[in-house]
Amino acid sequence: MSNASTVPTVGRPEIAAQYEDNSRYPSGIAYMDGQYLPMSQAKISVLDWGLLHSDATYDTVHVWDGRFFRLDLHLDRFFNGLEKLRMSINLSREEVTTVLQNCVGLSGHRSAYVEMICTRGSSPTFSRDPRDAINRFIAFAIPFGSVANAEQLKRGLHVAISSTVRIPPASVDPTIKNYHWLDLVKGLYDAYDQKAETALILDFEGNIAEGPGFNVFAVRGGQVSTPAKNVLPGITRRSVLDICSELQIPVAEKAVSQDDLFGADEIFITSTAGGVMPVTKVNERSIGTGSVGEITKTLMDEYWKRHSDPKWSTPISYFS
Amino acid sequence: MSNASTVPTVGRPEIAAQYEDNSRYPSGIAYMDGQYLPMSQAKISVLDWGLLHSDATYDTVHVWDGRFFRLDLHLDRFFNGLEKLRMSINLSREEVTTVLQNCVGLSGHRSAYVEMICTRGSSPTFSRDPRDAINRFIAFAIPFGSVANAEQLKRGLHVAISSTVRIPPASVDPTIKNYHWLDLVKGLYDAYDQKAETALILDFEGNIAEGPGFNVFAVRGGQVSTPAKNVLPGITRRSVLDICSELQIPVAEKAVSQDDLFGADEIFITSTAGGVMPVTKVNERSIGTGSVGEITKTLMDEYWKRHSDPKWSTPISYFS
Repeated sequence: MSNASTVPTVGRPEIAAQYEDNSRYPSGIAYMDGQYLPMSQAKISVLDWGLLHSDATYDTVHVWDGRFFRLDLHLDRFFNGLEKLRMSINLSREEVTTVLQNCVGLSGHRSAYVEMICTRGSSPTFSRDPRDAINRFIAFAIPFGSVANAEQLKRGLHVAISSTVRIPPASVDPTIKNYHWLDLVKGLYDAYDQKAETALILDFEGNIAEGPGFNVFAVRGGQVSTPAKNVLPGITRRSVLDICSELQIPVAEKAVSQDDLFGADEIFITSTAGGVMPVTKVNERSIGTGSVGEITKTLMDEYWKRHSDPKWSTPISYFS
Repeated sequence: MSNASTVPTVGRPEIAAQYEDNSRYPSGIAYMDGQYLPMSQAKISVLDWGLLHSDATYDTVHVWDGRFFRLDLHLDRFFNGLEKLRMSINLSREEVTTVLQNCVGLSGHRSAYVEMICTRGSSPTFSRDPRDAINRFIAFAIPFGSVANAEQLKRGLHVAISSTVRIPPASVDPTIKNYHWLDLVKGLYDAYDQKAETALILDFEGNIAEGPGFNVFAVRGGQVSTPAKNVLPGITRRSVLDICSELQIPVAEKAVSQDDLFGADEIFITSTAGGVMPVTKVNERSIGTGSVGEITKTLMDEYWKRHSDPKWSTPISYFS
């Protein structure tokens, strides 16, 4: 699909003083430069290096039933990314927490997808040197979204393996959460071409890396495993490792081959956007019994249970 | 550097109806959705997948002395990128040409940096499926910029080789001009740490790939060479190959090792942002005689001469 537009072909066109915006925006609240704004106002210049060089890091925490889930881990990762990219924001960790809380509180959303972003910004002197840039911090809260819809959560997602290779750590450090997604988008279109709903892509050794916005786990003979390297260290992935450890379910971070997937009893993916989500088909082949497995079900239940646990979650103030 | 901001820490903050923007923008004209706008109005939503997934392609053509340089080649590459990313815009090649011409004409810039962008956009139903997205076309013309300043053009740039590896073609097709620059930005900071002015980064075989926004050439014994693969097929690179061919200067696209650079008589880089630009130091070692070489000078001269050649350039209408 593409945007409608008209192009004047003759004569001098008018210059409009202000952009007339006819796009739709989700309900939510954003924060930029000390201002809380409706989502329609949350925009960056096309000259921001966050766009022009994808020179940015971010994190997404979710709110469920009025509580942040594991906010501390998301903040750790975000500030770690800032440091590695040599960016800085004029907000402390506590101030970022306040901003995120206020975006959610003002939005009124009981379940929300909350993103904090730092872009390189741009240079006020228009130089090409990133050291001259004024880094830009943005945050917003919009309604919660999920990789899998209700039906898919019940019957399991159908995924396809793409031969696209995840951008390797020698190029981009995957512990810096980043927007370099063209490999994942290519994988997604490859998956759609195979009538699947989402994709898994490979690492340089031909093992499974991850999918667009999620990590992957395989279960075989009661043993849970997930790729050890070349992947984003996801917070939901971390949560599954923690829950397995608590419940004494054997779990390992190790290479997961394509054959490991096809031979698995159960497969699931993990993402802040949806939590623990079952996979029941890979490349149109049924996995295990073909329905959502018992360990997957247990982990889904345990994951959602912890959303009301004060050790894993923090309440939002809705300024009622 | 980071942006100034204040965070309310107590009570319910106000929601502003409109973002108050105190940033500076370069002089220029942008185009979005049929509207010509000052650069301060050229913004995209933080929810656009062009930002959130760097799911975008673009091209940059320059205008010199009132004429586009090799616009056709830039349009070829842009439309090729759109097709490979399965994006579409509602503008024909002729209409895009008109838009670019009008942005420059309205800006009044005799020398300009002209960018055309297509982002994935976003889904009007807020789905996560890129096939649902309304792709967004944006163009703008701002003052011409160069990788090298006047002094650097005269004495040659000082570059450093970073061990960062350029994102490989198995991950992202380099013939789709894209914004995945975190590897190049890392290289740039590595170079700054070594007191150099810009960077070269490697390919997976340890050969030289390219730098932030430019291709690289080495000259030895009258033979010109440039990396054959793992690089953006730059239009300035293409122009140098064409000029060498016309002038019967021997030239080859082939692997260029780090030793090839240190042993070169001359090195130069090529970019739309500056043309053919000499390099006289690599990792603080002088290259050749330590000053700008004869073949480099010839290619710089020939490159700029062609900017008035109707076979290589197209005049702008300034609506005078």
